[in-house]
Amino acid sequence: MTVFSELIKSRTSANNYDSVRKLASDEITQLIALATHAPSAFNFQNWKFVAVHSDAAKARLLPLAFNQPKVTDAAVTFIVCGTLEPHLALPATLKPSLDAGIIDEPTYKGWIGAANSMYQENATLQRDEAVRSAAMAAMTLMLAAQSHGLVSCPMIGFDQAGVAAEFGLHATDVPVMLVTVGYAAKANWPQKPRKAVAEVLSFA
Amino acid sequence: MTVFSELIKSRTSANNYDSVRKLASDEITQLIALATHAPSAFNFQNWKFVAVHSDAAKARLLPLAFNQPKVTDAAVTFIVCGTLEPHLALPATLKPSLDAGIIDEPTYKGWIGAANSMYQENATLQRDEAVRSAAMAAMTLMLAAQSHGLVSCPMIGFDQAGVAAEFGLHATDVPVMLVTVGYAAKANWPQKPRKAVAEVLSFA
Repeated sequence: MTVFSELIKSRTSANNYDSVRKLASDEITQLIALATHAPSAFNFQNWKFVAVHSDAAKARLLPLAFNQPKVTDAAVTFIVCGTLEPHLALPATLKPSLDAGIIDEPTYKGWIGAANSMYQENATLQRDEAVRSAAMAAMTLMLAAQSHGLVSCPMIGFDQAGVAAEFGLHATDVPVMLVTVGYAAKANWPQKPRKAVAEVLSFA
Repeated sequence: MTVFSELIKSRTSANNYDSVRKLASDEITQLIALATHAPSAFNFQNWKFVAVHSDAAKARLLPLAFNQPKVTDAAVTFIVCGTLEPHLALPATLKPSLDAGIIDEPTYKGWIGAANSMYQENATLQRDEAVRSAAMAAMTLMLAAQSHGLVSCPMIGFDQAGVAAEFGLHATDVPVMLVTVGYAAKANWPQKPRKAVAEVLSFA
């Protein structure tokens, strides 16, 4: 599927957005619906998204994102969170897979037991899992946006604690990145050069 | 682009692989080339991939992946690593973007300075960045595989320290996940149900 290869290669981290063109709430919802098709360990789906799209909310976000103009120029800036303690929600999260007959009762119970034993005492694994799940969802979101004719930018340059406080995140919500999405303005960077594959890939 | 939405929706975490059909080294290289088009903070590209595809290497990986048969049945299992201390490599990693005129000299120097001050004393941020970059590359890899008619599965169930030792990873390489890639055998799960978008998305 050449089209998809081109989509991957043409995605750039865009700094400049058309500040006039907005996205309808329906389109924002569609993008997140696609993002949540990303995989996650045990199908935890341990992610949350805040779509910052009103002028008032953007103004609150701007200083917490070190006044980077793309936060207000983009149609929407998503606060992409991963959530800690994913094992606690697993019985409910996995129930639809059991009910649909995709996994059987022993698998359902086995996964819950395994997740409890792996995660409940392991803060590092909980944080890794929050970052891992949120990053996979964010990547899917950015490619989905690209396929909708939009541009995006992942951002780690923001005040995590300030964003958490200002937008009422729970103590278990880790704001893993901001992702701006909108229509491109002029003069965006091209995609930056990548290392040669041989530098990062080995065979065994 | 409806095709891409269908690609996202049709990707599943596949357990069952055709153990006969292999992937050529060229095709493995192409998949990783696409994966490395993922974004990363400061364009760190702080990832590494080991393509475990020989019978001998699969046999070494199997017990470290808790004897999950997909590790040997899949054409290839990638050890997807994120790397710590990304700021140390940044002058070299970013040089091609400077040389290509994509960023100017003050930006080049500014980013290196900012990365040094953010990362050098912050082990948590280094680990977050390793997981974040590797997860975005892994997600791109899985979608690229899907677009090539292949199936995949991300796996966190493996002995990280054992894999690092057995496959000669550096102390700064964090094995963030395994990703099996190959041709599907029968009886794979469908994609598991996702939460309603309203459960995970709020507007501000």
